[in-house]
Amino acid sequence: MAEILKLKSPAEFIGKQGPGVISFGSGQPDLPPPKEVFESVKIRQDLRYGLIQGELNLREALAKEYPSSTAENFVITNGASEALDLIFRAWGKGGKVLLPRPYYYSYPPIIEMAGMQPVYTDLVKGRIDLDDFKKKVKGCKAVLINSPSNPTGRVESIETLKEIEKITAELGVYVVSDEVYKDLIYERENYHIKGNHVITVNSFSKTYCMCGVRVGYLWSADKKIVEDICEMKTHTSMNTNLVGQDLALAAMKAPKEYAAKQLEVWRERRDFIYKGLTDLGFDLWKPEGAFYVLPKCNNAREFLTVLYQNYKVITYLGEWFGAPDRIRLSYALDVKLIAEGLSRIKDAMKRVKVL
Amino acid sequence: MAEILKLKSPAEFIGKQGPGVISFGSGQPDLPPPKEVFESVKIRQDLRYGLIQGELNLREALAKEYPSSTAENFVITNGASEALDLIFRAWGKGGKVLLPRPYYYSYPPIIEMAGMQPVYTDLVKGRIDLDDFKKKVKGCKAVLINSPSNPTGRVESIETLKEIEKITAELGVYVVSDEVYKDLIYERENYHIKGNHVITVNSFSKTYCMCGVRVGYLWSADKKIVEDICEMKTHTSMNTNLVGQDLALAAMKAPKEYAAKQLEVWRERRDFIYKGLTDLGFDLWKPEGAFYVLPKCNNAREFLTVLYQNYKVITYLGEWFGAPDRIRLSYALDVKLIAEGLSRIKDAMKRVKVL
Repeated sequence: MAEILKLKSPAEFIGKQGPGVISFGSGQPDLPPPKEVFESVKIRQDLRYGLIQGELNLREALAKEYPSSTAENFVITNGASEALDLIFRAWGKGGKVLLPRPYYYSYPPIIEMAGMQPVYTDLVKGRIDLDDFKKKVKGCKAVLINSPSNPTGRVESIETLKEIEKITAELGVYVVSDEVYKDLIYERENYHIKGNHVITVNSFSKTYCMCGVRVGYLWSADKKIVEDICEMKTHTSMNTNLVGQDLALAAMKAPKEYAAKQLEVWRERRDFIYKGLTDLGFDLWKPEGAFYVLPKCNNAREFLTVLYQNYKVITYLGEWFGAPDRIRLSYALDVKLIAEGLSRIKDAMKRVKVL
Repeated sequence: MAEILKLKSPAEFIGKQGPGVISFGSGQPDLPPPKEVFESVKIRQDLRYGLIQGELNLREALAKEYPSSTAENFVITNGASEALDLIFRAWGKGGKVLLPRPYYYSYPPIIEMAGMQPVYTDLVKGRIDLDDFKKKVKGCKAVLINSPSNPTGRVESIETLKEIEKITAELGVYVVSDEVYKDLIYERENYHIKGNHVITVNSFSKTYCMCGVRVGYLWSADKKIVEDICEMKTHTSMNTNLVGQDLALAAMKAPKEYAAKQLEVWRERRDFIYKGLTDLGFDLWKPEGAFYVLPKCNNAREFLTVLYQNYKVITYLGEWFGAPDRIRLSYALDVKLIAEGLSRIKDAMKRVKVL
């Protein structure tokens, strides 16, 4: 084996494709965007700055999806990533943020770069442990939750979400709820956490298979939060790209069956990879939403290196998500490719002791 | 007069249009983008994530415009704003950054948000005073220069730029050179500051009249800087929107006459507004590049309020740019509108003592 890869994050793997490569890496749908995106959008002639808050027609369309909301409650951003980054930066320095662990790999750096301090509550069987949560949330400025979760694929129960909604309201703690996988839940509808203390983060990327267009948004009932974030965005990126916003609005015109059909594809893949990895002996949680599995894995970094260098299979280290004894696989690829990938994983397991 | 406006920044004015409003505010071209943008771009079918660093074809096209460069020297960003934000954030906490004052209004917050400290060298007659510069640059981590300058409209001499290039190289101080107006110089060609210690920031916004598309970039000869910035961007926004990058590449196919013709329009406007304001009695520097004037103005905030509320004329406060005794006007609008705006300014001058 060549030298073990020293990657500190997935940065090098993102957007990487190549002949024969099977990527369980990047978390993005491989399915096509709605045909409405291509049918109805012409590139606008006027390419001058738009409103920092986002195009009014797009925000008005979103408001119809959120109860008791208007266009004023939304800010359109360069994907959910920028929404998260702006939220924490707009709060300014200081304060603790509670994070369930394992977490999405960008959460801790985004919080730390904003001058805030992440503290952790460890998931139990992939779910939030409310006793531990209640202890640790005291004295925090905010909590950041993500259900369905990247990287665990787990969905918090509605009871848990309501309890979090209530506890945080009582304590005066903000909830940042990253719901980018809200349309990819296998078991039930999404439960949208509400309240003046809640900021919801969402995106067109996963629902409409348009990650590269970079259009996301945040929702807040608190006018001051919206204003502060727009002020921040004026300095850091100005309006979100206008053509992308036109595509996002077009995508919203897709019929409901679009999402429903996609969900069937995801469910088939979920069942396939869960069975496949279980059959290979891996210990993992069954995904209830999103498109990730996070199996336990010894010698994870060595295994990632062998998989990449000898078998052209991309996986992500659990370490990047606060789970050093695991690896993350995205199953956003065709069942045939998942099958081929699992077969290569089986071969690679002969070289590295992972179980 | 109604209450004096308390605006802390231009955020509320950006993207604002309306019947009868004459905006000398937002700094963006009103001229059309090259026709190549609309003729050759089809919305790509594959809207998955792109490379964090930016699309290879766009970076290769840029490399041809920068001597001894390859695609590896560039990172494509959400406008020049994000490029600047990423550069300072990637350096991490601490260190002083030298800024000529007046400055572009986002420079100090971007530097401060990155945990660095801005220090200032005051311009003399709108130009860098090399004696003061040499004193203050010692002990700085970086300097941030902007020639042609927003808000002064001034262009530094090639001798000054070469001297800055040399002094900073000797002292081991980085130069961040914001050259977004490089194609809008009335007197000469742009001089591109070079060296391993230089990071150039640029954009498609001003040259190709496509501010709302949000595609900019940075150039650096230092591989480590490029890597660190890509790592940062992975967390904060991922790839720059792909459709925007396609439009930017198409814009680069415009013939040289496109920029040359635009420059003639800008020159006419420059001459017109400079004469108009001088005739009204204002004391101002003659612009040599970009499309801004920064006349001296007493009671600036009161004047801005009256102009906006009573005359529907948008101007920006010099205060936002570190020049509290001035106002900034962008002349990115038709000569007829400039004439109408100047006539309203003349009327408003009867209400507020500005000279």
